Amino acid sequence: MNDHPALKPPTIVIAPDSFKGSLSAADAAAAMADGARDAGLALGRADIHLTLCPMADGGEGTLDAIAAVWEVEPRTILTVDALGRSRPARYAFSADGRTGLIEAAESNGLPLVADVFAQPQRADTFGVGLLARELLDLQVDEILLCVGGSASTDGGTGLLAGLGVRFLDAAGVSVAPGGAGLAQITSIDLSGLHPRARMVRWRVAVDVNNPLCGPAGAAAVFGPQKGAQPSDVAQLDAGLAHLGAIVFAATGENMRDRPGAGAAGGMPATLVPLLGAELVIGSTLVADAVGLASKMASADLVLTGEGSFDSQSLGGKVAVAVARLAPAGCPVVVIAGRVELSSVDTATSGVTAAFSIAGGPATLDDLQKHAAERVRETAAQAVALFLHSRK
Amino acid sequence: MNDHPALKPPTIVIAPDSFKGSLSAADAAAAMADGARDAGLALGRADIHLTLCPMADGGEGTLDAIAAVWEVEPRTILTVDALGRSRPARYAFSADGRTGLIEAAESNGLPLVADVFAQPQRADTFGVGLLARELLDLQVDEILLCVGGSASTDGGTGLLAGLGVRFLDAAGVSVAPGGAGLAQITSIDLSGLHPRARMVRWRVAVDVNNPLCGPAGAAAVFGPQKGAQPSDVAQLDAGLAHLGAIVFAATGENMRDRPGAGAAGGMPATLVPLLGAELVIGSTLVADAVGLASKMASADLVLTGEGSFDSQSLGGKVAVAVARLAPAGCPVVVIAGRVELSSVDTATSGVTAAFSIAGGPATLDDLQKHAAERVRETAAQAVALFLHSRK
Repeated sequence: MNDHPALKPPTIVIAPDSFKGSLSAADAAAAMADGARDAGLALGRADIHLTLCPMADGGEGTLDAIAAVWEVEPRTILTVDALGRSRPARYAFSADGRTGLIEAAESNGLPLVADVFAQPQRADTFGVGLLARELLDLQVDEILLCVGGSASTDGGTGLLAGLGVRFLDAAGVSVAPGGAGLAQITSIDLSGLHPRARMVRWRVAVDVNNPLCGPAGAAAVFGPQKGAQPSDVAQLDAGLAHLGAIVFAATGENMRDRPGAGAAGGMPATLVPLLGAELVIGSTLVADAVGLASKMASADLVLTGEGSFDSQSLGGKVAVAVARLAPAGCPVVVIAGRVELSSVDTATSGVTAAFSIAGGPATLDDLQKHAAERVRETAAQAVALFLHSRK
Repeated sequence: MNDHPALKPPTIVIAPDSFKGSLSAADAAAAMADGARDAGLALGRADIHLTLCPMADGGEGTLDAIAAVWEVEPRTILTVDALGRSRPARYAFSADGRTGLIEAAESNGLPLVADVFAQPQRADTFGVGLLARELLDLQVDEILLCVGGSASTDGGTGLLAGLGVRFLDAAGVSVAPGGAGLAQITSIDLSGLHPRARMVRWRVAVDVNNPLCGPAGAAAVFGPQKGAQPSDVAQLDAGLAHLGAIVFAATGENMRDRPGAGAAGGMPATLVPLLGAELVIGSTLVADAVGLASKMASADLVLTGEGSFDSQSLGGKVAVAVARLAPAGCPVVVIAGRVELSSVDTATSGVTAAFSIAGGPATLDDLQKHAAERVRETAAQAVALFLHSRK
């Protein structure tokens, strides 16, 4: 009888995303842990073993979340923003020296250039290349690149330029940085590429499935939020299409219709064919980076969560990614500000049960203001039901 | 291994109160059952055994809830309202003929006299006595009396008059019905009391703890909502105090400060000392009437619920009463429109976990409009977590 599940100290792994607008992933995990302890105390189980693993989806906050789990401080170097203005940017370097993580928006993020008139055709990813160069110089084996939130639509040409690649026009002259010059590119000179650039594994976390160009492409869909007027969109879209053709001619790899190629102003259009980068779902990249699967291997219960558990969650947000990696038979509970998925969709996604933090009628503002307390309470209720049910 | 809990078909008992303003107890139970089946199907457990036992708290709807569980149709007789106007009223008579249930407000309810100017001093409980007389004539052994929602403040004198008791003034004349005459009572003539009135067990479900008179008494606290002006309150309060003294002199039982004696215009003030009635918490009375404890004896999980799970719940609303009667070790989950109790208070109350039907930011109106769907969804999530956790 000593192996009766109710007698063993239960292990609960807590791996939430941030609750956008209210809680960082670390804060959400801490609140869930408090709730789990509340439930344990109430049920006379002070022996619960908690493993906290704050998660991220490859978007804003990913750098901090991964650095925290890696137990490293992010490092800072001088780089440039999307308009070429000098600025510091952070990256993470794993303690074993094998992996580096870049959150591209640290250098080419849209908010960093919000102080001047939008220049969607000028904006580039050169600064991201400087971050990548630093990691290559540090001899990493793998670069994890999160690309959301960019100001640029340059097809990743800036990043590659930062690593030494030259994009040349018909006269053999380097084209100006940014999306405006893409249509002038006639050849790509890789002779100056950083020697380690093609020796490392590149994994790029993309947050959208859009193709490179066309009506659902990077320029048409995301250009306007970067300040592109209709004429800019047309020019940027044509530039990306041209770049796709050039790259296809050079490598045989057709990126124009690849889902995700339209992420971050088309960065995958060059990173995939020229560097062999893999496109991955952000939450999967993070889960791998923090070793989530091994942390969950002995879990009796997994708590995860995010601001909204909805149809987008099925596309690969954190909660569903966590559920997919959880060991067979281990219940996975989602705690979310908003639960929009039905119980049927919840079950189909691999999540056992999803509970909103709302305790009754409430405004979004109420829930955001009291998010930590509500997450704690909801976690306590769910953990209590878990503990009591396994008896 | 055949007795491993995960292999036995789980038995779930579903015993919610109504969700005031949106769902009857029967509708709430049906929605929870749908949710439990959803969860069972999703987890490949179509063998869940469900026992539905809609509950009530002794207030409005109790008659219907108990008649449904008793599988009898309520019967109707001609009685009078609180102002003596002829009207039909219903009662329930158990199939074995041993128990009768009266919801007093069927005859002396406040809404039934809302068509005329309030007459708080005139209103009486005579019609309730006619219902009780009918049950005595039917030879029941036990009368269950739910007294909430009354229009009267007559200390139960009307009810007893309906059973043949005479309340006499100094001249030996019957005083007029209603609270106004209480102060004139000098003696009580029990000679005409129905011969079976003191042979049956009376259980009175009271919904408040107020004493008979004084600042927290029936007149002061509940008189105004029955239309009593300050002068009425003073006169009714004095009348109840006088009645308490008269009854004390006649029986030696002091009802003035008894918690609950101030319920329903002081009805317990005469029913307890003159008929030996017991005051009970409404939800306990209902639980006994429907045999809830035996229905739950083999439960693996109990689902209950109510409109609001709050500090009042601890005073004996349905959810906590259900939790107290659930077998040891059986998890009890509350599903409520609003969950105001903390997880700590939830645990202290004997409830395992409480979940709101809110799936995120929502208005009360939203939740009421979609109550059935939300109850079903929330039940499905909770049952899924239960089923998965016991594996």
